[in-house]
Amino acid sequence: MSEVRILPVTGMPEVRPGDDLEAALLGAAGRALRSGDVLVVTHKVVSKAEGRLVDLSGVTPSAFAREFAERTGKDARQVEVVLRESRRIVRMVGGLIIAETAHGFVCANAGVDASNVPGEDCVCLLPEDPDASARRIRAAVRERLGLSVAVVVTDSFGRPWRAGITNVAVGVAGMAPLLDYRGETDEHGYALEASVLAVADELAAASELVMNKVDAVPAAIVRGYRYVPAEGSSARELVMPPERDLFR
Amino acid sequence: MSEVRILPVTGMPEVRPGDDLEAALLGAAGRALRSGDVLVVTHKVVSKAEGRLVDLSGVTPSAFAREFAERTGKDARQVEVVLRESRRIVRMVGGLIIAETAHGFVCANAGVDASNVPGEDCVCLLPEDPDASARRIRAAVRERLGLSVAVVVTDSFGRPWRAGITNVAVGVAGMAPLLDYRGETDEHGYALEASVLAVADELAAASELVMNKVDAVPAAIVRGYRYVPAEGSSARELVMPPERDLFR
Repeated sequence: MSEVRILPVTGMPEVRPGDDLEAALLGAAGRALRSGDVLVVTHKVVSKAEGRLVDLSGVTPSAFAREFAERTGKDARQVEVVLRESRRIVRMVGGLIIAETAHGFVCANAGVDASNVPGEDCVCLLPEDPDASARRIRAAVRERLGLSVAVVVTDSFGRPWRAGITNVAVGVAGMAPLLDYRGETDEHGYALEASVLAVADELAAASELVMNKVDAVPAAIVRGYRYVPAEGSSARELVMPPERDLFR
Repeated sequence: MSEVRILPVTGMPEVRPGDDLEAALLGAAGRALRSGDVLVVTHKVVSKAEGRLVDLSGVTPSAFAREFAERTGKDARQVEVVLRESRRIVRMVGGLIIAETAHGFVCANAGVDASNVPGEDCVCLLPEDPDASARRIRAAVRERLGLSVAVVVTDSFGRPWRAGITNVAVGVAGMAPLLDYRGETDEHGYALEASVLAVADELAAASELVMNKVDAVPAAIVRGYRYVPAEGSSARELVMPPERDLFR
């Protein structure tokens, strides 16, 4: 194994709906990128470019959202947006809604987020299809720079049993998000039964080390990690299949 | 923000119970280490050096362990060890036991693991006090090399809702495992309410990118990450407090 480097992508302009995200990303990262890199991008800039922002002043909350918001001191319009982004509610405790999104991700507030968004009354949704977003970025890197990279789109999720949030992958392109050691043996000849590594999540977590919620570094380059190339891969592979999920 | 580098620590000898782990680690990593680095060490070598190996041939399973093992096709002696390492069983489904360890970590098989362990009938436990193990390694680096580093001891855990395992921190020394952005504002002036980052887990995940379950790279150096120095910190800060844990 050799060294892995994580390089922050700085100098990105503020991204607005309809902006050419690929042009902004490559403007900031292009000269640093090399073939074989993993370009890790926070969903926030992807969502903004794709217009996945909701102005709460135009949202009429349902009776259910109003009742929940009133009881928990939340903004009923924001609760309404969370419910609209949810396919299934996993838990509602205190003011917290843990929900399954249309993509299958289980996370707080169905990925609806009010931080790092312009405007007081504005919230940001997850991209509609974060894998497609990742594929578009990857294609742009190939077409405009002639380089082959993998792309990971991230969000930060909480986890049961553990405090704090970590960055995870919500979209991938060009690489296998899981690395399956099953069938291989360790140096003692022991078959590695339970060793499927969520490498896309580990890349997402690693990239967070050079990002910064306050300075808003929206992307990072991971260099030296030998990912398993894969076309047509999806971050949905990182969703635990319902029949194996003990915590639905 | 500047670059973060992750360097694999190679050339470690096989560690056996009673070995001087610090000498082995510093022999392999010492010349590469610098003040300000985070030395990330898999718990497996720590557990081995501390003699946290159990020879199953000496284990007499309880009736409960025998019944569960028979019904699920598991080794009753291994189930017995899992139960002994458990403070509370969270789920028992199929052959899977998700348990809370004495440290408070919730994970599969209470951290009992048969991979990368010498001997067919041998399993490895988590260190009894992984923070103390991390502190010992940190102290050895200070005493023998005159360097100030942070240390993270890791294991790989599965997660509800997401497929695959990722490396997480089970022991820390010299750094705050959580980074609390609450009270700070983003570039739009929005107060970052829910932003407590589990940076020790992200460091653990990042280090996995240069480890390899087959080649058994047992440690990594993370350079360039500006951790928040903290004496007396603990990976138990990464355990979700029971009153805030919706999935107990």
